Amino acid sequence: MSSVSPFHGLSAFPLTPADINGRVDTEALCRLLEPLCDAGVTSIGLLGSTGIYAYLTREERLRAVKAAVECVKGRVPIVVGVGALRTDHAQDLARNAEAAGADALLLAPVSYTPLTQEEAYQHFLAVTKAAPLPLCIYNNPGTTHFTFSRELLQRLSDIEAIRAVKMPLPADGDVRGELAALRGKTDLAIGYSGDWGGAEALLSGADAWYSVVGGLLPRTALALTKAAMAGDRNEARRLDGLLEPLWKMFKEFGSIRVVYTLVEHVLPAQSELPRPLLPLAPTERQRVLDVTEPLTALERQSLL
Amino acid sequence: MSSVSPFHGLSAFPLTPADINGRVDTEALCRLLEPLCDAGVTSIGLLGSTGIYAYLTREERLRAVKAAVECVKGRVPIVVGVGALRTDHAQDLARNAEAAGADALLLAPVSYTPLTQEEAYQHFLAVTKAAPLPLCIYNNPGTTHFTFSRELLQRLSDIEAIRAVKMPLPADGDVRGELAALRGKTDLAIGYSGDWGGAEALLSGADAWYSVVGGLLPRTALALTKAAMAGDRNEARRLDGLLEPLWKMFKEFGSIRVVYTLVEHVLPAQSELPRPLLPLAPTERQRVLDVTEPLTALERQSLL
Repeated sequence: MSSVSPFHGLSAFPLTPADINGRVDTEALCRLLEPLCDAGVTSIGLLGSTGIYAYLTREERLRAVKAAVECVKGRVPIVVGVGALRTDHAQDLARNAEAAGADALLLAPVSYTPLTQEEAYQHFLAVTKAAPLPLCIYNNPGTTHFTFSRELLQRLSDIEAIRAVKMPLPADGDVRGELAALRGKTDLAIGYSGDWGGAEALLSGADAWYSVVGGLLPRTALALTKAAMAGDRNEARRLDGLLEPLWKMFKEFGSIRVVYTLVEHVLPAQSELPRPLLPLAPTERQRVLDVTEPLTALERQSLL
Repeated sequence: MSSVSPFHGLSAFPLTPADINGRVDTEALCRLLEPLCDAGVTSIGLLGSTGIYAYLTREERLRAVKAAVECVKGRVPIVVGVGALRTDHAQDLARNAEAAGADALLLAPVSYTPLTQEEAYQHFLAVTKAAPLPLCIYNNPGTTHFTFSRELLQRLSDIEAIRAVKMPLPADGDVRGELAALRGKTDLAIGYSGDWGGAEALLSGADAWYSVVGGLLPRTALALTKAAMAGDRNEARRLDGLLEPLWKMFKEFGSIRVVYTLVEHVLPAQSELPRPLLPLAPTERQRVLDVTEPLTALERQSLL
């Protein structure tokens, strides 16, 4: 596959700055995207889970895509999350993203009534028909509660527009075994999310790291990605070790609450978590800031 | 508590007829509500899970509530599902339901990012402040993936508007033990959903049966409810036995897919499942129709 694939390397997932009513602050969004372009991440994962796609109206999601396309100006491919409970809504979102100039789509099988494998298949097929952009399957059982069978991934990979899958870290930790099994069945680019497992996933041969910290500390995340993809275990693990205190916070509070804690302090933007999600308590917030401070200092100085 | 509580007895959950684009057919909805009023169910659970609340826009949900209030004309209390991913949306839905004349609210902690106990508490509190109607907690981990701790149920029961909880069947089957534990902590009316466990839950002392079949075969469901609440085990179990083939279909296909299969054949309405949910395949559909036919005959003849 082409080396400019948005699905090979570091895909950085920024938050989407919005006020308490879910109105996206498009200027603040652009201020968050600028350092990602400067660092040269492989792609921007706009409106991912951290980008609160599930909590924004279709109108606000379109405003975010238009603003991002306008400020990124083609420097980095933009992958847009188009997940929705209804198939027709997901199709609308996909059409809107394409019309606004998105480069690729990310689609999670969001569910209320648990979906069958066939229902998920037809949902993906319908969205690819609505907008024929390259599409990454967003496999995130922690939020969608849907489990893809390997047979379903194989069927989906036969749809031409479907090029990649964003996998959760395997429960048994065996990324290498999972990659071997999946590559026997599909030609999808296979990347991983769950930031604390990114380094090992890449060292095990994954094609991409779908990374929350990539949207926050892009230079650090990119250095880790490059080291791991070049097989430099020592450097990848050194950087992963520096990030370990942040991973602990991600696991304890959920990465979305940690990232939104950092907005006011680390990022050039203000933003509110969509209620019912609540900001961390003051003592928790201070712990997050304490572990992040040395990392942001490193990032700013590019002392890597 | 008053015997006219919507949370004591049979709460019948009809589907919400809608077209493939999610436009509610308000006339068909009224045709479904008429037999529920005639049978004298305790309350109507409008826009529950089977009533596809999660798949309808706020505008369509308001249209459904207005139509239901208009055609029910106070004969039976209407409990309206107001669950939404965003707290402000759930508040809007609650205000709309109250303004339209709903009698009570049903609120599920719908989630994308998994919620903390405190986040769920604040979500419920905010909705009760928006519209002070009596509220039933919708505890449905199969769709929301949220688990209420008993401490959270206790805290929620201290909010004046919160009067009831709709529980899933306990994993260990011990409704009696669960009721004893919950009644030691709260004064909520405690009802159960999961139709196949309704008879035993009522025989074990539950206050209500939140029932999908109550929206489909209200006379049969009401006869079962009355027998069980009067302690008539033989009659309750006899009726439950008649319904057993339908419970098997509910378990195999999910009750929502079964009920939507029956719309065209049994109910005086047409309706589409919201995609990505798919209709059953023809052979599955026939099995559902076959087991339902004797039940609908019974229901029509009121031979109970």
